[in-house]
Amino acid sequence: MISTKWAKQIKSLQLKKYRKTEQQFIVEGEKAVLEVLASGWQVPALFATERFLQQHPAAIQAAQLVQACSPDDLVKVGTFNSNDAALAVVTIPSWPAFQTTPGQWALVLDSINDPGNLGTIIRIADWYGIQHILCSADTADCFNPKVIAAAKGSFLRVKLHYLDLPQLLAKPHLPVYGAYLGGENVHQLALSEPGGFIVLGNEANGISQQVGHCISRKITIPAYGDAESLNVGIAAAIICDNLKRLTAHY
Amino acid sequence: MISTKWAKQIKSLQLKKYRKTEQQFIVEGEKAVLEVLASGWQVPALFATERFLQQHPAAIQAAQLVQACSPDDLVKVGTFNSNDAALAVVTIPSWPAFQTTPGQWALVLDSINDPGNLGTIIRIADWYGIQHILCSADTADCFNPKVIAAAKGSFLRVKLHYLDLPQLLAKPHLPVYGAYLGGENVHQLALSEPGGFIVLGNEANGISQQVGHCISRKITIPAYGDAESLNVGIAAAIICDNLKRLTAHY
Repeated sequence: MISTKWAKQIKSLQLKKYRKTEQQFIVEGEKAVLEVLASGWQVPALFATERFLQQHPAAIQAAQLVQACSPDDLVKVGTFNSNDAALAVVTIPSWPAFQTTPGQWALVLDSINDPGNLGTIIRIADWYGIQHILCSADTADCFNPKVIAAAKGSFLRVKLHYLDLPQLLAKPHLPVYGAYLGGENVHQLALSEPGGFIVLGNEANGISQQVGHCISRKITIPAYGDAESLNVGIAAAIICDNLKRLTAHY
Repeated sequence: MISTKWAKQIKSLQLKKYRKTEQQFIVEGEKAVLEVLASGWQVPALFATERFLQQHPAAIQAAQLVQACSPDDLVKVGTFNSNDAALAVVTIPSWPAFQTTPGQWALVLDSINDPGNLGTIIRIADWYGIQHILCSADTADCFNPKVIAAAKGSFLRVKLHYLDLPQLLAKPHLPVYGAYLGGENVHQLALSEPGGFIVLGNEANGISQQVGHCISRKITIPAYGDAESLNVGIAAAIICDNLKRLTAHY
């Protein structure tokens, strides 16, 4: 059973404005909740089925409050269609301001709207060892439940910073690569140094003019067939894969 | 206004068994409907808003029956949350049986369950000029509305064949690459010839044992961080990108 007070709190955390005022978000499902409990992040409350609580007696010690409930309760307050494990209320961490570091790659997201795309990109960044993602203020919120679900546990390892992109990229001291149609072929790129910014634009409109002015090299995924475009998550993956491959050759 | 008979027909085509008996499927949204009208595929019926009909007087000639209706009508009978353009009922085409062709790549899907993943993979195949996708019988149906939506227009150009994979791959005459953890690094692969089969496994369980026996080379996307896995659509994209890059070097 989840108390009315907590049920209301959890529901409110599905909205960005309440996540901002409360500085909390929710994590759902067995695997992600176990990862968050093991991460050292603060977990003010954990709601879980008897089965989950019995199987993970050590892990659940990390939560400040633990309440048993039914799978139906979890579905009622959460966003999943089914959840026979757990839901955690987690405190949003704060981390140091982003610092440009030579020899490192950072992703830059210029107005990525779809939470699923953002979650996918976080997971890709984690796969490729990219620790920072810099987002325009209008990019989807990284603590949106759909982002958390799509990112799998990777939201625990990749740091997202929401900031003024043109200001950040005005004096970048590092190359700024932008994904465009008609740029240099990513298969044949010669890197000037092993790191930089990788800019991806909005799903419908691409990179904005303001951010576009900061791009030092336009790059393109070569096409061999007739598809007009690739999904932005797919494009992010292919570009990261090529740039990491080329970094090894550098 | 959409007649009760057609509304019922369109609703039924959201289920695989009716698509099979009727040999029809539905295409929704402005861009995809325009592509299907221009493709030469048979369109027994088109339901569209007055605005769409007025803007595309030539394109709609390709449909056998044209009926004006409201955006609400389109949403009521279709699967989209909003649709202010059109919905087409399309005849499922038949194409020649798949033939192994040296020098060509084909994707092989061993039990891909998620329609969104299948649609994404169709779009990727189209981008990389891969014309054939060979699917196990239990892979999602390629005429499922969610597959069609995710594939964008690419479902018109890539041919999907549902067949017995172990039988097909028993005597392949071409290399059979399989995506595994712990295989050869796709960045450094030396191809024995410029083509072959690229096998991708189920979202949760990977490649089945039966299909696994047919793999001649296990390949892996190198990881640089801590993510445990990549989504199968993302993996398909990165593998296709590397194999096409290496084909050019061959």
